[in-house]
Amino acid sequence: MGEAMHDEAWFAARASRGVQGLRAYDPGHDLVAFRRKFGEDNLVELGSNENPYGPSPAARVAILDQLHSLHRYPDPLGLDLKRALAAKHGVDVGQILLGNGSHELLMQLAQVFAGEGDDVVYSRYGFAVFALATQCAGANARVVEALPRDHAAMPLGHDLDAIAAAVTPATKLVYVANPNNPTGTWFGRDALEAFVARIPDHVIVVFDEAYAEMADAPDYASALPLLARHSNLVVTRTFSKAYGLAGLRVGYMLAAPGLVAVMERVRESFNVNGPALAACEAVLDDAAHLQWSLECNAVERVRLSQALQQRGLRVFPSQTNFVLVEFGANTALFEAALIAQGVVLRPMAGYGLGDCLRITIGTHDENQRLLAALDTVLG
Amino acid sequence: MGEAMHDEAWFAARASRGVQGLRAYDPGHDLVAFRRKFGEDNLVELGSNENPYGPSPAARVAILDQLHSLHRYPDPLGLDLKRALAAKHGVDVGQILLGNGSHELLMQLAQVFAGEGDDVVYSRYGFAVFALATQCAGANARVVEALPRDHAAMPLGHDLDAIAAAVTPATKLVYVANPNNPTGTWFGRDALEAFVARIPDHVIVVFDEAYAEMADAPDYASALPLLARHSNLVVTRTFSKAYGLAGLRVGYMLAAPGLVAVMERVRESFNVNGPALAACEAVLDDAAHLQWSLECNAVERVRLSQALQQRGLRVFPSQTNFVLVEFGANTALFEAALIAQGVVLRPMAGYGLGDCLRITIGTHDENQRLLAALDTVLG
Repeated sequence: MGEAMHDEAWFAARASRGVQGLRAYDPGHDLVAFRRKFGEDNLVELGSNENPYGPSPAARVAILDQLHSLHRYPDPLGLDLKRALAAKHGVDVGQILLGNGSHELLMQLAQVFAGEGDDVVYSRYGFAVFALATQCAGANARVVEALPRDHAAMPLGHDLDAIAAAVTPATKLVYVANPNNPTGTWFGRDALEAFVARIPDHVIVVFDEAYAEMADAPDYASALPLLARHSNLVVTRTFSKAYGLAGLRVGYMLAAPGLVAVMERVRESFNVNGPALAACEAVLDDAAHLQWSLECNAVERVRLSQALQQRGLRVFPSQTNFVLVEFGANTALFEAALIAQGVVLRPMAGYGLGDCLRITIGTHDENQRLLAALDTVLG
Repeated sequence: MGEAMHDEAWFAARASRGVQGLRAYDPGHDLVAFRRKFGEDNLVELGSNENPYGPSPAARVAILDQLHSLHRYPDPLGLDLKRALAAKHGVDVGQILLGNGSHELLMQLAQVFAGEGDDVVYSRYGFAVFALATQCAGANARVVEALPRDHAAMPLGHDLDAIAAAVTPATKLVYVANPNNPTGTWFGRDALEAFVARIPDHVIVVFDEAYAEMADAPDYASALPLLARHSNLVVTRTFSKAYGLAGLRVGYMLAAPGLVAVMERVRESFNVNGPALAACEAVLDDAAHLQWSLECNAVERVRLSQALQQRGLRVFPSQTNFVLVEFGANTALFEAALIAQGVVLRPMAGYGLGDCLRITIGTHDENQRLLAALDTVLG
């Protein structure tokens, strides 16, 4: 027996229902190949919403301190980092769960709380992992239309009223992102509180706040203050964006202790590695570096947005370290022409936004190189 | 709504069936606390089967090279490492899947291929993650009795005949470990081939070979050569043991391309972090360091086993970097007395082997310190 060599379709037919219909996450271009082709110094990487200012130098020092103990398992509890995060956010240690990136946590929330026959609600143009997590769990995706492109205040933003209205007795989980990737859109305190008040307390609402630190609009509001009153809310955060540690894969969630305890059952005990734990602890202590990189980003976000608008491009409002930009019918040609000049942006066809590109806010120099390349292409 | 603060039981009742009955993996003692209490230099850590010789120095160099790009996402495909592994094992790149430790892969294999109503078969005293993965997926565990303690050749070893006999039409997945943790036991080529021949080709058999590099018995046989003829076989390996990189969390599996492709759908695209990818590539190039650490382990395994036997303790046969040792009715007292002297071993009550301790083979010096502490306790 066992002599037949079966193919992907054969194995997929034997996989769980969710996995049968699942396609892997699309991470964008093969940047490793681009770096080899262009050389790192000649490449302007503005496709992955990374922090161009990098992490606090304390991250590197912390990793150096780990090099003598690479053969030791990391702290399975991640207690030092959890204590630091609890202090930072004013919550109990038992309200924090560490993830191998918030990606892992978003996946596991669906794995734990949604299954076949259950509904998961999220917005069109919501972060791609919401759809993957729902599909992987075998649950039904209820995709709610976003605010229209011609919406005055928040084009393509989450329509929180419609999301709340889409919640039914079959709904187990709701994902919202604030600010949202890839649109850059956000919502404020009044909308947030009205939304939460409409959701029954047996429905878990996940607020993906990967870009929260970058939001400086007066009306932006994190869901964190609501955790104390609503045990059905989850907030996910990450060290990949504002803290500049995308290479280390650390995210975390904050929620009621009972919810965290159930998620801890599914967590693999060493899911965050040793150097990553140490580096995250270290960067939390360097408020000045964080503040500096956030201020640089805020300044460049305004400047780059204006420069793109001056070139006749529509720039959607953003509270993140990227902007969604409408390039029109020839978007794919623009994108290819920019790549030929070593400028990598993120195509949006996978999100159903094929006439747009997502542009990470780079350093002043990177943004200038983008604009110069764009002028060549537009000219 | 949402004002009631619910507890763990409330959330567990709303979790998937598997998670309702799941308990988190027990990583053993809180070593971080022990290190603080005793000081690292005064602690003899022989509880986690880590490699006391550490990784190749090339791992540290590779990580240093990553420190300038911590803000960049890792290669989502991990292609360089996969190419190196494919070359090492003589398989195609498409036959390799990278995991955040083999723990992640063992969990996801059950998540993908087993669910409610399905059976998963594994041996009593098999690696703890087999049970966790089965429970998390909501599948039924069919735990097969191990060979008896008074078995002449392989006490507590996998009973492959009984495992094969336990496979029914409901069986989706079989986990075996060769060598097995925590018993140290193994099986050879004839037994392996006879076993595989008895398993229907729609049942996926996972060979956890985390300790394979350490096996030097003439009759030990990896399942790797069988992959070319049997697409239902999976072999998992790790960089945590022989390669001394437990702190970085990298494992991998080898299987038929079709099976790997289905598992790729579930993999989070950045599941292995940047420094970890780089370090693993680097250590694969240092065959001399690997060979040296394996030889040290082999010598000390014999020496420590004999020394323990000379003290009247039963040592089970092992092809790994640890030995399972029978301490009898007072095991818990022995363990506590050793901890008081700064020697940490792994208690086995969670495995139903409460009269045994698992002892990692340390360096010569560590083993001497263990034996000295033991003499104090036994005296």
